[in-house]
Amino acid sequence: MSLSLPADLDRLREPAEATAIIRAHTPLLPAETASLTALAGRVLREDIVSDEDQPPFAASTVDGYAVVADDPAAVRAVRGDQFAGRTESLRVERGAAVYITTGAPIPPGADAVVMVERTEQAGDTVRISRDVVPKPGENIRPVGSDLRRGDRVLSSGIVLSPAAVGLLASLGRTAVQVTRRPRVSVLATGDELVEPGETPAPGQIRDANRFALLAALAPLGVEIVYAGIAPDTDDAQRAFLTARIADSDVVITSGGVSMGRKDLIKGLLVELATVHFRQLRMRPGKPFTFATAGDTLLFGLPGNPVSGLVGFEVFVRPALLAMQGRPDAERPRVRVRLAHDVVPVDRTDYLRATLRTAADGVPEATANGTQQSSRLASLVAADALVIVPPREMPYRAGESLDALLLG
Amino acid sequence: MSLSLPADLDRLREPAEATAIIRAHTPLLPAETASLTALAGRVLREDIVSDEDQPPFAASTVDGYAVVADDPAAVRAVRGDQFAGRTESLRVERGAAVYITTGAPIPPGADAVVMVERTEQAGDTVRISRDVVPKPGENIRPVGSDLRRGDRVLSSGIVLSPAAVGLLASLGRTAVQVTRRPRVSVLATGDELVEPGETPAPGQIRDANRFALLAALAPLGVEIVYAGIAPDTDDAQRAFLTARIADSDVVITSGGVSMGRKDLIKGLLVELATVHFRQLRMRPGKPFTFATAGDTLLFGLPGNPVSGLVGFEVFVRPALLAMQGRPDAERPRVRVRLAHDVVPVDRTDYLRATLRTAADGVPEATANGTQQSSRLASLVAADALVIVPPREMPYRAGESLDALLLG
Repeated sequence: MSLSLPADLDRLREPAEATAIIRAHTPLLPAETASLTALAGRVLREDIVSDEDQPPFAASTVDGYAVVADDPAAVRAVRGDQFAGRTESLRVERGAAVYITTGAPIPPGADAVVMVERTEQAGDTVRISRDVVPKPGENIRPVGSDLRRGDRVLSSGIVLSPAAVGLLASLGRTAVQVTRRPRVSVLATGDELVEPGETPAPGQIRDANRFALLAALAPLGVEIVYAGIAPDTDDAQRAFLTARIADSDVVITSGGVSMGRKDLIKGLLVELATVHFRQLRMRPGKPFTFATAGDTLLFGLPGNPVSGLVGFEVFVRPALLAMQGRPDAERPRVRVRLAHDVVPVDRTDYLRATLRTAADGVPEATANGTQQSSRLASLVAADALVIVPPREMPYRAGESLDALLLG
Repeated sequence: MSLSLPADLDRLREPAEATAIIRAHTPLLPAETASLTALAGRVLREDIVSDEDQPPFAASTVDGYAVVADDPAAVRAVRGDQFAGRTESLRVERGAAVYITTGAPIPPGADAVVMVERTEQAGDTVRISRDVVPKPGENIRPVGSDLRRGDRVLSSGIVLSPAAVGLLASLGRTAVQVTRRPRVSVLATGDELVEPGETPAPGQIRDANRFALLAALAPLGVEIVYAGIAPDTDDAQRAFLTARIADSDVVITSGGVSMGRKDLIKGLLVELATVHFRQLRMRPGKPFTFATAGDTLLFGLPGNPVSGLVGFEVFVRPALLAMQGRPDAERPRVRVRLAHDVVPVDRTDYLRATLRTAADGVPEATANGTQQSSRLASLVAADALVIVPPREMPYRAGESLDALLLG
């Protein structure tokens, strides 16, 4: 290959610069139709306007007796029962009442409902407690009191909450436009990798990254179109990457982006895509490739398991949520206090840490043991990634830093 | 039926008392075996002890040249390449070096690796930058440096994070014991209900609650064994409830728990289960039945959509997570400041509110318009339920109250 590469391709990018580059290349995915039972957490892509009044009829909000409010009678003749679900031909006038259940339509003539707890029925008559003075409209939901025809009830761009899904059901919207799920491929690379069910030969290890990444992807509303190990040969990886770019919105590779001669992914990305950067001024995870091919984003994560997962958290997860139009694409950032001294390095350090709330209410961060990028245990119980910028002086216990909240 | 019921069955329970009763009857579900790709967010139910050292061989942490650290030679003979994945029969002594990639096993004799960026290979020799003084062990992960055989790496009871899933994969644990998913049935009741795709006849409305509940259940790791509308006849509901109790850990009904004659669920629960309470001193959602039949929990939610969802949030969701052994069963509770006056009612009011962070960093809560229990719109964009205890005086803007954070 003799492609011309940007002169600063291997310049170390600050995390914020990397985020800006990724964001600038992250498309909003198109909308698709999804049905009522598949809407939880999806992003709505149309405005929903009510084409009816809700409730469509004046309805009782309690179980009781529909009456005329302005009626001095102590005992009233019960004209029948009005249950929810259909409209009986019953009329209420002074001296009369109709037994009615919650949600049932108010019979013509009635303008109030007395709760059943305040009444006593005997045969065909009902006695209303002496201290009850029904007010017109009492215990009645008027037509359109929840929603008026023409009201915009949901706006394009919201994340569909359970209440929003209920609203759509109540309006008879059995299918709506939402952002399509990102199609994601995950490829682990490396001749040293075997499947977890296999026994590693000398020099081999089991693939952990693919399973960690699949677990990290599980709650993000994506569709996994492929997940597997590729062998360390150029042709196999070229064929794989070409196919995955064609059928994926996001291709995530693990390994093969370092400085070694077998780091084929790095070369292939240059050949098959536009590489935007491939080194970060951060720890863990200095080698990290971001490339695009058409609308497909390619993330080349480092092979070290912690480096890969931290890179996923900081850069890939936000992109996967942003392409769905999720307003909560970024992990919440909070100010935390260091529980102990921290020695900075020459790059921004994402310290795996556990938070606990101190007596004064401030979250206090403790690093999870040794922070080697191969040591997954440091990330297993991490609540947060504390962002430690480089500087000469060590950070002292009690100093405050920003942290990304995990999980 | 002439069953003897507890004398205080219909006593209004404070929310805290209701929570305690539910908690006392919520079993921890048994463990089951789940495979690596189905572990995200599940609760581990066995201790995981490493049966091997990680890494199993001393490995290079960089791409470069394996050398003897204590070697004055400026130029060394390259004896071959040691890639990751298999062990070559190469030896390193003074004056020699082996090209090595990240993750590859250190050849015998070598005790340091020099990063490729600090070297220059020419033919069969490599020159190491003059300013590089390799230290013994440099850029090498020793055997067992991440994990030692016999280490307990994960403890029973943790929620499996992506890193934990990666650790299991690296140890070859392709299946582990986790809490079984709760089996949940959802039944909407009411003759007035039609499916969302149907046109309601006069007096009818579309079923919204079932779809809202299914959306609320979606992220909770449960298995839906049934979801449908039951007709308002005693026999149909008895048959349904009996079958659902047999095949479910949790049965959620919506509607039919109020004071009306058609509120059959209420009577059936007394017949088929042990009813613990059926009224709450809260708004929305005063009618709320909690019952148990064997190990099955039954929640009778009110039919009003907001009442049902708030009851679900406050009581059902925590139970569904607690039965999985999730330590985060409760929604986070925060102290918020009221942005405006709030008039309390005679029960604990769960005010649907939107939070924004004020200039001084304190979250400030604004109620979402009218709080009628039929008005789903008030819950669509709610961030929080502000817990407003009853009292004589109105709450004033600026006063602080507890709130449950949603979503």
